[in-house]
Amino acid sequence: MIRAGIIGATGYTGAELVRILYGHPRVEIGFLSSRSFVGEDISSVYPNLKGCVEKICEEQDIDRAVEQCDVIFVALPHGHSVPIVKRALEAGVKVIDLGADFRLKNPSVYEHWYGLEHGAPELLHRAVYGLPEIYGKDISEASVVANPGCYPTSIILGLAPLLKYGVIKTEGIVADSKSGVSGAGRTPSEKTHFVECNESVSAYGVSGHRHRPEIEQELGNLGKTPVRITFTPHLVPITRGILSTIYAELAIDMAEDEIRKLYENFYYQKPFVRILPEGVFPRTRWVYGSNFCDINFYADREAKRITVVSAIDNLVKGASGQAVQNMNLMFGLPEEEGLMVPGLCP
Amino acid sequence: MIRAGIIGATGYTGAELVRILYGHPRVEIGFLSSRSFVGEDISSVYPNLKGCVEKICEEQDIDRAVEQCDVIFVALPHGHSVPIVKRALEAGVKVIDLGADFRLKNPSVYEHWYGLEHGAPELLHRAVYGLPEIYGKDISEASVVANPGCYPTSIILGLAPLLKYGVIKTEGIVADSKSGVSGAGRTPSEKTHFVECNESVSAYGVSGHRHRPEIEQELGNLGKTPVRITFTPHLVPITRGILSTIYAELAIDMAEDEIRKLYENFYYQKPFVRILPEGVFPRTRWVYGSNFCDINFYADREAKRITVVSAIDNLVKGASGQAVQNMNLMFGLPEEEGLMVPGLCP
Amino acid sequence: MIRAGIIGATGYTGAELVRILYGHPRVEIGFLSSRSFVGEDISSVYPNLKGCVEKICEEQDIDRAVEQCDVIFVALPHGHSVPIVKRALEAGVKVIDLGADFRLKNPSVYEHWYGLEHGAPELLHRAVYGLPEIYGKDISEASVVANPGCYPTSIILGLAPLLKYGVIKTEGIVADSKSGVSGAGRTPSEKTHFVECNESVSAYGVSGHRHRPEIEQELGNLGKTPVRITFTPHLVPITRGILSTIYAELAIDMAEDEIRKLYENFYYQKPFVRILPEGVFPRTRWVYGSNFCDINFYADREAKRITVVSAIDNLVKGASGQAVQNMNLMFGLPEEEGLMVPGLCP
Amino acid sequence: MIRAGIIGATGYTGAELVRILYGHPRVEIGFLSSRSFVGEDISSVYPNLKGCVEKICEEQDIDRAVEQCDVIFVALPHGHSVPIVKRALEAGVKVIDLGADFRLKNPSVYEHWYGLEHGAPELLHRAVYGLPEIYGKDISEASVVANPGCYPTSIILGLAPLLKYGVIKTEGIVADSKSGVSGAGRTPSEKTHFVECNESVSAYGVSGHRHRPEIEQELGNLGKTPVRITFTPHLVPITRGILSTIYAELAIDMAEDEIRKLYENFYYQKPFVRILPEGVFPRTRWVYGSNFCDINFYADREAKRITVVSAIDNLVKGASGQAVQNMNLMFGLPEEEGLMVPGLCP
Repeated sequence: MIRAGIIGATGYTGAELVRILYGHPRVEIGFLSSRSFVGEDISSVYPNLKGCVEKICEEQDIDRAVEQCDVIFVALPHGHSVPIVKRALEAGVKVIDLGADFRLKNPSVYEHWYGLEHGAPELLHRAVYGLPEIYGKDISEASVVANPGCYPTSIILGLAPLLKYGVIKTEGIVADSKSGVSGAGRTPSEKTHFVECNESVSAYGVSGHRHRPEIEQELGNLGKTPVRITFTPHLVPITRGILSTIYAELAIDMAEDEIRKLYENFYYQKPFVRILPEGVFPRTRWVYGSNFCDINFYADREAKRITVVSAIDNLVKGASGQAVQNMNLMFGLPEEEGLMVPGLCP
Repeated sequence: MIRAGIIGATGYTGAELVRILYGHPRVEIGFLSSRSFVGEDISSVYPNLKGCVEKICEEQDIDRAVEQCDVIFVALPHGHSVPIVKRALEAGVKVIDLGADFRLKNPSVYEHWYGLEHGAPELLHRAVYGLPEIYGKDISEASVVANPGCYPTSIILGLAPLLKYGVIKTEGIVADSKSGVSGAGRTPSEKTHFVECNESVSAYGVSGHRHRPEIEQELGNLGKTPVRITFTPHLVPITRGILSTIYAELAIDMAEDEIRKLYENFYYQKPFVRILPEGVFPRTRWVYGSNFCDINFYADREAKRITVVSAIDNLVKGASGQAVQNMNLMFGLPEEEGLMVPGLCP
Repeated sequence: MIRAGIIGATGYTGAELVRILYGHPRVEIGFLSSRSFVGEDISSVYPNLKGCVEKICEEQDIDRAVEQCDVIFVALPHGHSVPIVKRALEAGVKVIDLGADFRLKNPSVYEHWYGLEHGAPELLHRAVYGLPEIYGKDISEASVVANPGCYPTSIILGLAPLLKYGVIKTEGIVADSKSGVSGAGRTPSEKTHFVECNESVSAYGVSGHRHRPEIEQELGNLGKTPVRITFTPHLVPITRGILSTIYAELAIDMAEDEIRKLYENFYYQKPFVRILPEGVFPRTRWVYGSNFCDINFYADREAKRITVVSAIDNLVKGASGQAVQNMNLMFGLPEEEGLMVPGLCP
Repeated sequence: MIRAGIIGATGYTGAELVRILYGHPRVEIGFLSSRSFVGEDISSVYPNLKGCVEKICEEQDIDRAVEQCDVIFVALPHGHSVPIVKRALEAGVKVIDLGADFRLKNPSVYEHWYGLEHGAPELLHRAVYGLPEIYGKDISEASVVANPGCYPTSIILGLAPLLKYGVIKTEGIVADSKSGVSGAGRTPSEKTHFVECNESVSAYGVSGHRHRPEIEQELGNLGKTPVRITFTPHLVPITRGILSTIYAELAIDMAEDEIRKLYENFYYQKPFVRILPEGVFPRTRWVYGSNFCDINFYADREAKRITVVSAIDNLVKGASGQAVQNMNLMFGLPEEEGLMVPGLCP
């Protein structure tokens, strides 16, 4: 059994890790820490877990964590991972960071967007960007994985085949993402107040969102050229789910079914990407609670434009499920172990 | 492996059976039938299942079903089960009816509330009422199980210990239930139109609802006297979940913690009933997607009244999860096999 | 023109007062105060008002307020009204308190439930309980009105005719209320976080809620005997609306249509109470944004029980609309002036 | 008083017309017709209207309608307006068509998208496109007005100043719109079933939606060149509201505040368009129930891209409110008469 520790177990992504790992046949949860609920049972903070996982949240004692665990999941806000990652690596314990600290390879880009000097720039290239459908081999050899952001996951998976094979131009890409409110975390605020969210749709971060450089870094790698996109996140009144609608200009004239084949080949034997049949477009409820990313597209050859739609559950494929998928690869397990669960629908 | 067949696989309870059985380690799905989607893959009707369950929906051919299966789940509207149950019994195949046809022991009560003469009154006493926390032993010996209604499950489990031990009077019981819209099924109607349900709460069936005689039958058995309740179902704008708030008069003066002990004893080793800690009242989201029934109560000794609150997921503990729990008992498996999944929360 | 001032204009009931008074042909808004938004325009705090009401929120300077206004609406949490009410009365300015400080006639009951000694018990009997359908005449002569709570409004209006005419027993009354989240106010909290409320129904205050003594005081007046009820408020995922389902024992045998006549007579020429036709039960969306209270009932003569269902918009008839209705009466205007607006439906 | 008739009064836009016209000081409702509810009172179909508007729905007798009315609103699906418009014009009665039959000036484009030969192509140029902020003068002289679609209203108003003054290129425009479910009408369907919409976001009409040619016609007029856009509508789980996020390439280098001035000048004295302050982006809840269109934008001069966000209530500014605004202009009334109501927020 793999012994897993979760630092930050009582935030939404932490609790989702607990839920997913409980269902994983090769994992036992060895350590949970929380800032706000030290000494409380995780099942009193998340009563859905009662009868399934009952374990006390400890203080954030990294020494204890690395001693008791084979892998550490860090589910903290950005700016808090560096000392934990360092300590884990010293101790030979694998670590998966669900925050943003190790995603951007360029420390000055990190500094610009997060307003912090990076605490360990020398580790940035050791950390593998944890998108298994693209970096599967690297992840399987990694000691530290930077788990992608939720928006980037949905957008990069939607565009990867098109950029890899030069089907679209790299200029003028637009990504319009609609996210559920759980993506904003557990801390109450005006923005996440029920009355403010309910019966409302709104755009935010229109002038710049921290996930944009992460998306651009990865699209640039895929397209082998720097990419500048327009990205607008939106808040919609659902708990879970991101739907990204992505617009690009076709670089070559290609028939719909040829493009479909590209997608299917690119995601061949990638169990969590589902290319939907022609004309069936993703709905967030079809991936609710699951690790799937559903994708479809429409190519308008006359207008030389393509529209791609992708859907994920932001807490699963956009965070904790993907982290467990990464763990599977890092420990040589089948990628889908403990994760092959259909969405909860209806 | 137990081979399971589902008659009516494309309604909400049918699809939920498919989802749950897919995750059951001892079951393979041997047969699916549907009226509306014959020849289509279940995963094209419910795309959440894509990549997990891909199987064609066949015509409702009972002979084929009993040939290929060890157990048949009937997920049809009332009035359609009798011939299927008869045929299954003849063939020595166990059958679990998720509809209402075998729940009421008195055929004239059935006729009164459902407007139909019962097609096989002689079978009514062979069918066991499938509430495992109460009839576990009978279920384990049954060939045919009548799976309870969703409202009755939440109300009977909430009141059972109080009635069994004479803590409350049997007159004047009020059950006020709030249900998600999936309980109304998959067929679109004015009542279930998004615009009509959203941002609205409403009572229905105020003058009489078909689940009332079922609740009264079981409460009467527990209290060993005929029981007449006031029951009002409500529609609330959520997909899944029933919260029942139940009001009764205390028959004896008993301290809160003694009543709590009664509950805990009554549900000792019943893995799916969770008595919450004092002062923590159930929320439907804590049982979302799970087979748990959460219960708590407040006893006002001064006013000689008790208020009980129970929560279930109407599609799981209120229908398909409970059906699988019954199947486990009927086949000698551990009650919780394939069902011990925490609620999806957040 | 009546010059109106609002103390606490940026809470939900304050903002709702601004919205309603903007549409009132005989009122101009003379003064707005806010603790959190001093110096900001109300239309930047509530951008829905932009182009309609643009006015700076001032500091809470009561001297200025009474100088500039003919009536003061106090929309503050309990415990803050006494000095404002005193100052307004001294200055001969009418005052309507939307908080709880003047609702309970017995100061020791107030102290018990609100944990505060009352600052002006001598004024309690000068304050009229502002339920116009019951105290219309007193309100028209009052200088200070205690605007009722939202739950009490829905429950008292539902039961008033039955208690007044002795149709029901005063023991064993149960009120089960379902409220939208705006009733919890504008301050973000775990309880009102979108992710916690969405897709969930929950009971709260099961062991006691501050509105219970208020309801009991008024039901006691109507029934001319002390009344003890069981009251359970619930949170449902809607923004506005309260549905109360009220259960009582019939004291006399009376036909459904005779009871209906009682209701219709009791509410004769009360423009905001609508007794719905037989079999049509209230939905909160039918009163959304309006000052109506919709009521219907079902009498089960066999079981000697009656079920009453009432619906209001908690921010309008349950707060700010009722306050304006009270203002109309206090100033000799037609009760419905500026308020006769249908619910926003769909 | 203007006597208004509504053909199709029991659909959502028809009922919304009734609600708005009830609050209009210069209008009385002279005629209501309905296919499904002939002989029923509109307030029994829409109980929110009870106590405000009580009037019988008649059969669709156009002769009677034109006799009793000064203006006819046609709130029917496309393909049904032609005979009504003809009859009204003959009788000298003004007519406002809320359907699609008179919006497209080119009958072959109409035929292509709606699959019908147009019944009166000779009238197409007599009908004025009813977007008052752009065609105000023409509308004031018109006998027949084609009320715009909901999506086109939000997109055209968002882009008009930019196209008029050549700020953006006309190629590569992307409009990503998110709509509430009331836009799909009152007839229940799988698409609008609560359980299918709730907790879900989805794209539809990705390969082509009927509102695209309408948008392109008007953007082409504004930009004085044919325009081809990419338009993707989405369904989000709210009742009312459209948020459109519109992406274009800047044609000229212009500072943010200069662009802001362009918007403010273009919409000078247009009471229903609100340009929000810098950095404050529209939310559908701020326009809920109102006739406002809120707009803001962000210009990224480095990337030469602009993102515009606009919000309307699809049933008001996107349908019935705009129709009444058109009526006001056609009858020489102030544009905002009966419409200057703030959004219902919270």
